Amino acid sequence: MAKDKKQPRPKAETPKGFRDYFGAEVTERAEMLGKIAEVYQSYGFDALESSAVETVEALGKFLPDVDRPNEGVFAWQEEDDEKWLALRYDLTAPLARVYAQHRNDLPTPYRRYAMGPVWRNEKPGPGRFRQFYQCDADTVGAPSVAADAEVCAMLAEALEKVGIPRGDYVIRVNNRKVLNGVLEAMGVEDEGRKAAVLRTIDKFDKVGESGVRELLGKGRLDASGAYIDGVGLSDEQAEPVIAFLTSKGETAGSTLANLRAAIGGSAMGAEGVDELETISTLLEAQGYGPDRIVIDPSVVRGLGYYTGPVFEAELTFEITDEKGRPRQFGSVAGGGRYDDLVKRFTGQAVPATGVSIGVDRLLAALRAKGRVTGEAQGPVVVTVMDRDRMADYQKMVAELRQAGIRAEVYLGNPKNFGNQMKYADRRGSPVAVIEGADEKERGVVQIKDLVLGSKIAESATLEEWKDRPSQYEVPRGELVARVREILDGTA
Amino acid sequence: MAKDKKQPRPKAETPKGFRDYFGAEVTERAEMLGKIAEVYQSYGFDALESSAVETVEALGKFLPDVDRPNEGVFAWQEEDDEKWLALRYDLTAPLARVYAQHRNDLPTPYRRYAMGPVWRNEKPGPGRFRQFYQCDADTVGAPSVAADAEVCAMLAEALEKVGIPRGDYVIRVNNRKVLNGVLEAMGVEDEGRKAAVLRTIDKFDKVGESGVRELLGKGRLDASGAYIDGVGLSDEQAEPVIAFLTSKGETAGSTLANLRAAIGGSAMGAEGVDELETISTLLEAQGYGPDRIVIDPSVVRGLGYYTGPVFEAELTFEITDEKGRPRQFGSVAGGGRYDDLVKRFTGQAVPATGVSIGVDRLLAALRAKGRVTGEAQGPVVVTVMDRDRMADYQKMVAELRQAGIRAEVYLGNPKNFGNQMKYADRRGSPVAVIEGADEKERGVVQIKDLVLGSKIAESATLEEWKDRPSQYEVPRGELVARVREILDGTA
Repeated sequence: MAKDKKQPRPKAETPKGFRDYFGAEVTERAEMLGKIAEVYQSYGFDALESSAVETVEALGKFLPDVDRPNEGVFAWQEEDDEKWLALRYDLTAPLARVYAQHRNDLPTPYRRYAMGPVWRNEKPGPGRFRQFYQCDADTVGAPSVAADAEVCAMLAEALEKVGIPRGDYVIRVNNRKVLNGVLEAMGVEDEGRKAAVLRTIDKFDKVGESGVRELLGKGRLDASGAYIDGVGLSDEQAEPVIAFLTSKGETAGSTLANLRAAIGGSAMGAEGVDELETISTLLEAQGYGPDRIVIDPSVVRGLGYYTGPVFEAELTFEITDEKGRPRQFGSVAGGGRYDDLVKRFTGQAVPATGVSIGVDRLLAALRAKGRVTGEAQGPVVVTVMDRDRMADYQKMVAELRQAGIRAEVYLGNPKNFGNQMKYADRRGSPVAVIEGADEKERGVVQIKDLVLGSKIAESATLEEWKDRPSQYEVPRGELVARVREILDGTA
Repeated sequence: MAKDKKQPRPKAETPKGFRDYFGAEVTERAEMLGKIAEVYQSYGFDALESSAVETVEALGKFLPDVDRPNEGVFAWQEEDDEKWLALRYDLTAPLARVYAQHRNDLPTPYRRYAMGPVWRNEKPGPGRFRQFYQCDADTVGAPSVAADAEVCAMLAEALEKVGIPRGDYVIRVNNRKVLNGVLEAMGVEDEGRKAAVLRTIDKFDKVGESGVRELLGKGRLDASGAYIDGVGLSDEQAEPVIAFLTSKGETAGSTLANLRAAIGGSAMGAEGVDELETISTLLEAQGYGPDRIVIDPSVVRGLGYYTGPVFEAELTFEITDEKGRPRQFGSVAGGGRYDDLVKRFTGQAVPATGVSIGVDRLLAALRAKGRVTGEAQGPVVVTVMDRDRMADYQKMVAELRQAGIRAEVYLGNPKNFGNQMKYADRRGSPVAVIEGADEKERGVVQIKDLVLGSKIAESATLEEWKDRPSQYEVPRGELVARVREILDGTA
C-alpha cells in the first residue's frame, strides 16, 4: 500500500511516566479490589465513583505537605467559561467535594469506599508512575472514635480476605492529640516551632531515636555530609517527645500508662490517650487483639496531616531487597482522622476518618507471598490443520468453553504449523489440540500437553517423565474430558 | 470555628457534563462488566488497561466522522518538552498505539478486551456526559472472517451472560465490501460521490427507503422544512443501493442470493458476499442460528467507517418511551472490521476486527428488564441505645457479618432514637436491631423488620399483615438466625 507522503508517522509510545497493564496485571488487581470491596460492603460502606475530572477550585491545595494550587496536577482550561479543570490527584479531595455537594441526600454518617486511578503531574521515577490506583474507605460525619476502630477492624479483614494471613500483618494505631498534648506539656506554643517539631518527628522512621534527639536539639550531620539545623530545644525540653515516640510497652495497658506520663497535665493529651484506650477496648471486644491491631506511638507517618487517631498497616514478613538482604515488607495502608475535610466548602467542620490502601504495594506483597503469580492461565489452543474446516475447530472450542475451559482457535495464517505452536507458547497455553484430515477420518484428535512438554524439555533425564508422552491421541468424543484431566493435573 | 477571612469558599460541584455515581450505580456496572469479562476471557481474550492519558500525536484524528486533531478531547501541554497530552476519547485509538508499541512482545493474532472510562470534550446534553464507560473486544492481526464470526458469537454469549435472554436480542451482520461492490456495479467511481452515497445510506435508519431514494436522487424536504440536496443519481442508478439495503430475505440463503444480484459482476462485492456466507456457515455450525445472529444488509451504522464485516446488537423487546409509546429498545453494541488501525504508526496495514458495547445503554436495558434494580440492599443497622456499650453493638455486627450479612452500627450521635430510624430508612436497611438496658438484662434483642414495616404502612388494611408484627423480641443468641429469616423472606 502507498505510504503517507507528507506527515511523519506518529510515535507509538505512552506519554512519559505512564504505562500499559496487560492480562494478569489487570485481572489480578481487579480481583484483589473486588475482594476488598466485598469486605467494605459487608461493613455497610457504599461505593462511590466520582469523575476523574474536577474543577481546580474544588480540588484546592489539599494534598498533604504540598503547597500548590495547580502544580502537581494535570490541568487545562475550559474553552467557554475559562474555568480550570484537572485530573484528581487522590480520592479524598473528591470525597470532600461530593459530600459538600450532596450532603442533603446522603446518609449521615456517610460510609463510602472508592477505587480508581489518580493522576500526579510529577517527575516519574523507577516504579513511580503518573497514573496509579488508590483504594479508600472513609466515614464522614461520625465524631466517635468507634468509627476509627471500625476502619481499623475493616482493614484487618480486608488484608486477610485478599490473602495476607494473620500474623503477617499488624495495624499500628497512634493519635495526633497525644502528640499535641506532649507539645502542650513541653510548653511549645509557637506555631512555627510546633511545625518544626512535627517535621522532625516525621523523620523518626529514618533517623531513629538518637537522630530525632539531635534534630530537636542543635542539629545533625546528614549521611550525605550536609548539616541539618536543629529545632533548638534543650535535652530536657526534648525529653517528652522522645518519651512519646518510645512509649510502646509490652501491653496496651503499659503503653497507655507511658503515654499518660508523657503528656503531663495536658487536657488535649488526656483526650488523645482516652481515645486510644477506647479504640483498644472496642477492638479487643470484637476479637482484634494486639496480634492484629496494636497501639504504637512510634507511628508518625501522617501525624502532621491528621487531627486524631492515625493508623498504618504494616506487613511483617520478610522479603529480600534488590541487594539480596532480608527486610520487612513494610507499610501497605494508612489513614486517620481529619476533621476539616468539608469545611472549606461549607464553613462547617465535619468529622471524618478513613484509610487508603496502597494498591500497587499490596499487589506486590501478594506476589511476594505467591498469592498471585502475575501470569494468567493461557487458553487451550485448537490449531488449524485444514482452513476449510474452521467450523469444526470452532465447534471444539465452543465445547471446551461450555465446560468452563478457556479456549480459542488459532486465527493467524495456518500455513506454517510451527508458527501455531510458537503462538500457543507465547499465549502460555497449557494444551494444544490438533485434528488433521487423518485424525478427522479416524474420529480422533491429538492432544499436546504443553506444560508437561516444557517440563520434559527442562529436565529431560528425569525418570518420572519417561513413560508419560506429552502428546497422545484420544477419541474426538473424549476431547473435553481429557483436556480437563490435563488441566486438573490428573492426566 | 473561625471562618476563612479572605478567600471566597470554593463551589462544591462537578465540572459541567460530569457526574458522580453512587452505590448500586457503581456495583451493578462493575458486576455487569465482570460477567462480560468472564465471557471474553473464556474466548481467549486478554485484559488490557492502557493509561487514560495519551500523546495527542498518538491519538491522532481517529474518531469516526470527526475531523479534528485536538478538538473534542481534553488536552494540555507538558511543561518540560511542550508535548501535547490528552485524555483518550475511545479505547480503539489506544489499542492501535499499544499494538504498534508492543507488537514484538504480543501474540499475533492479539485478542484483547478493555473496559474503562473515556472522555469527550463535547457539549454535554441530557443523559450525555463528557466521561463515560466503554467496553471493547478486538482481535488484531487476524485477516480471516472467522475472527469476525467469533466476535459475533462472543457478543451473543456476553449479552446472555449479563441477563438478556435469547429471543430478546439479535445481532445483525452486514459487510462494507458488498456495498463497495454495489457502488462498483453502479459505476460510481468518483470518491466525492461515493462518500455522498455512504452518507446517504447512513440515514437509512432515520429516513427509510423512500427517504434514501429521494436523497440519492434530487433531494428531500426535511421534517424541519429544510431542503436537503440529493446526490443526483437517476432512479435507475440508485436502484442497486436500494436493492442492497432491502435485500434481507426469509433465510440467509435468500438474503445472500439477493445480494449476489445487487452486486452485478463486481469482484469486490462477490468477496463481500462470500465473507457473509462464511460467517453465516461458521456461526450456524456452532449453533448460532438466525434467531440470534442474522445477515441483514439494512445495518448501515458504521458502514462508512469499517472496511469489511459490520455488526450491531439490537435488543428487540419493547419499552415505553418518555411519551408512553411502546418502542423497541434498540442498539446496545456495534463493531466491525477496520484494517488500517496500526498503519499510521508503522506503515504496515494490520487487519483488525472488534466490538464495542454501550455500557450505559446495556445497563439501562438490564434495568428495563428488571435484572438490576439500581438500588443496593442496605445493611442491617444495629442502633445505639447506650453509648457506653458500643463494644456490645460492634460484637453484634461482627456476628452478622461473619454470617455473610451486611451490617453496621449507627455511628452518628445516638441521643435521638428517631434520627437512628431515619438513618436506617435512608440506608434502605431491611432490619434494625435494638438492645437497650432492659433487653440486655433479659438477654434479648428487639428486631424491627423495616421492609415489612413499610409494607404495612403502605397497605395497612391488608388482612395478610394483620398477624405479623413488624417488631418482635428474640433471644440474643438467636440474633443472626432470626435476622437471616427476615432477609430470606421466611420469617
